[in-house]
Amino acid sequence: MRFFLHNHPQLMAITMRLQSFASAQKWEGGVSMVQGASRGIGLEFVKQLLEKNGKGHVIATCRNPTKATALLELKNQFAERLNVLPLDVTVESTIEESARSITERYGSLNLLINASGILSIPSVLQPETTLSKVQKSSMMLAYEVNAVGPILVIKHMWPLLKVGGLLGTDRDVAVVANISARVSSIGDNRLGGWHSYRSSKAALNQLTKTISVEFERKKDPIACILLHPGTVDTDLSRPFQRNVPAEKLFAKEFSVQKLLNIINNAKQRDNGKFFAWDGQEIPW
Amino acid sequence: MRFFLHNHPQLMAITMRLQSFASAQKWEGGVSMVQGASRGIGLEFVKQLLEKNGKGHVIATCRNPTKATALLELKNQFAERLNVLPLDVTVESTIEESARSITERYGSLNLLINASGILSIPSVLQPETTLSKVQKSSMMLAYEVNAVGPILVIKHMWPLLKVGGLLGTDRDVAVVANISARVSSIGDNRLGGWHSYRSSKAALNQLTKTISVEFERKKDPIACILLHPGTVDTDLSRPFQRNVPAEKLFAKEFSVQKLLNIINNAKQRDNGKFFAWDGQEIPW
Ligand SMILES: NC(=O)c1ccc[n+]([C@@H]2O[C@H](COP(=O)([O-])OP(=O)(O)OC[C@H]3O[C@@H](n4cnc5c(N)ncnc54)[C@H](OP(=O)(O)O)[C@@H]3O)[C@@H](O)[C@H]2O)c1
Ligand SMILES: NC(=O)c1ccc[n+]([C@@H]2O[C@H](COP(=O)([O-])OP(=O)(O)OC[C@H]3O[C@@H](n4cnc5c(N)ncnc54)[C@H](OP(=O)(O)O)[C@@H]3O)[C@@H](O)[C@H]2O)c1
Repeated sequence: MRFFLHNHPQLMAITMRLQSFASAQKWEGGVSMVQGASRGIGLEFVKQLLEKNGKGHVIATCRNPTKATALLELKNQFAERLNVLPLDVTVESTIEESARSITERYGSLNLLINASGILSIPSVLQPETTLSKVQKSSMMLAYEVNAVGPILVIKHMWPLLKVGGLLGTDRDVAVVANISARVSSIGDNRLGGWHSYRSSKAALNQLTKTISVEFERKKDPIACILLHPGTVDTDLSRPFQRNVPAEKLFAKEFSVQKLLNIINNAKQRDNGKFFAWDGQEIPW
Repeated sequence: MRFFLHNHPQLMAITMRLQSFASAQKWEGGVSMVQGASRGIGLEFVKQLLEKNGKGHVIATCRNPTKATALLELKNQFAERLNVLPLDVTVESTIEESARSITERYGSLNLLINASGILSIPSVLQPETTLSKVQKSSMMLAYEVNAVGPILVIKHMWPLLKVGGLLGTDRDVAVVANISARVSSIGDNRLGGWHSYRSSKAALNQLTKTISVEFERKKDPIACILLHPGTVDTDLSRPFQRNVPAEKLFAKEFSVQKLLNIINNAKQRDNGKFFAWDGQEIPW
């Protein structure tokens, strides 16, 4: 009797894993992807990843690369260590296209940061101050961008993260960091309001937890975490900064430094956890 | 100088509240609305509310009253104590139309149960067994029906609930009960999977908590709670009953009896809480 590998699905899976592993190049300094990198916290992640790690490669994605002037300046400075790709989380084909492009050029990912997010968009999305102002269109849009978007990105980058985690870098595992927000916490919700944003981010938390369970069960070398950056001085928080005491409004440089510290020390056991900028866990 | 009430918005609000209060009739046995009443748990709520409270009035809403044969049979039996109205949570105008109709005929609500919900719809919505099967369309649909729908219903019934709560019944306050599910709990998520359903129900929890904060701040006489019915033998659970031990699969009669017990004993202090059928609180 002859032995056919394809009759042994488990062996086949291991063999395929070893093949992709063997053909994959190990990138010194690792390959990091920052999704939502045109402005704010995402842009600052790109900057610090490039500056603090002299060898690392960074893929920065945004909706409109030609208009992302700050990213283009970084491109001048860091040349082939920075790769800017178009990605709109509401258009799944752009996510698939990015995954294809990263697969061809790098073959692996050691870090994926989902930094995109919306809270208010003039005359489209207004953070709700009362139930009577809740509108279906705002609810659906916030969910599409803040919850569904990051999960679709992870879905398509998953194979790359598995290879990255197996190859290893300074970290034990590949890391996925989804930027959530403290106001997503149901247990910690004392002020109410912001229905669209709060519920989309609570859903992001549940989705992150759900996929972390699968990563763990499949022994994937990936830790998936949620991060709260603090209240950070960006376009997103600008309309709401009036009531924030000065010492509680962080520069993005400070917040991202703190978050990168958490990311760089992330271990398998952190998979599925939700951390604030200071390392404290946030209740669901 | 003359005194114009409309120059004093707060006084105006109180006066309007007193007016609607004064003109509102107090219904012996109270007025209850069950949203999502064509089948399953919602239908059983309608039945028990009519049978156990010989004077109470029940408004049962569903997408297709003419096809809701079980509801129509109850209508034969309970005549004008049961009022069947068309309501699809994905079509906001049907919610507004119901609110108008209830305002005209009753002027108040003492209880609102949001029982509608979806987990699987053949060839449309498949509970996901892995991240690689997550589809945007399923995610958006589950969110629209399970999270946004109930919240829009509460938005439009809010004025009626305020009057109902002020008028009072056996309960201290008007009660809003949103049927959630234990699998919505992020802290309790050990199995993974069912991404669309889990995240939509986690969002429902966050939305319920968010509006409960507003009800409390405004001293509205309404308690808004979340309920887990257990695993109940209905169309929704049928495809997934194989792995459920017999003693853990509840008849809908049993589950609804337990849930009505919680609802009938609900106090203002329960506002914003999440209870299982046995009265135990479920972590977020
Ligand atoms: N700032 C804070 O205080 C704070 C607090 C808690 C949590 N957060 C979270 O931190 C993350 C970053 O926020 P930020 O303060 O840096 O906000 P920001 O300055 O407004 O930047 C938001 C980013 O998201 C991108 N984005 C929006 N819609 C997108 C889409 N459909 N596809 C791809 N990218 C999209 C934007 O790209 P465009 O340039 O194309 O619009 C932009 O790069 C968000 O998830 C936010 O919820 C922020
Ligand atoms: N059964 C369980 O084990 C279980 C466990 C935990 C939580 N739950 C929750 O309990 C609730 C009731 O579930 P069930 O078991 O009674 O399910 P079911 O038998 O499948 O009934 C679902 C109900 O929701 C209605 N519905 C669906 N889409 C709607 C829409 N767009 N607008 C208005 N109504 C709509 C259906 O109406 P049509 O007849 O028109 O389709 C039906 O009346 C759900 O929220 C469910 O998530 C159930």
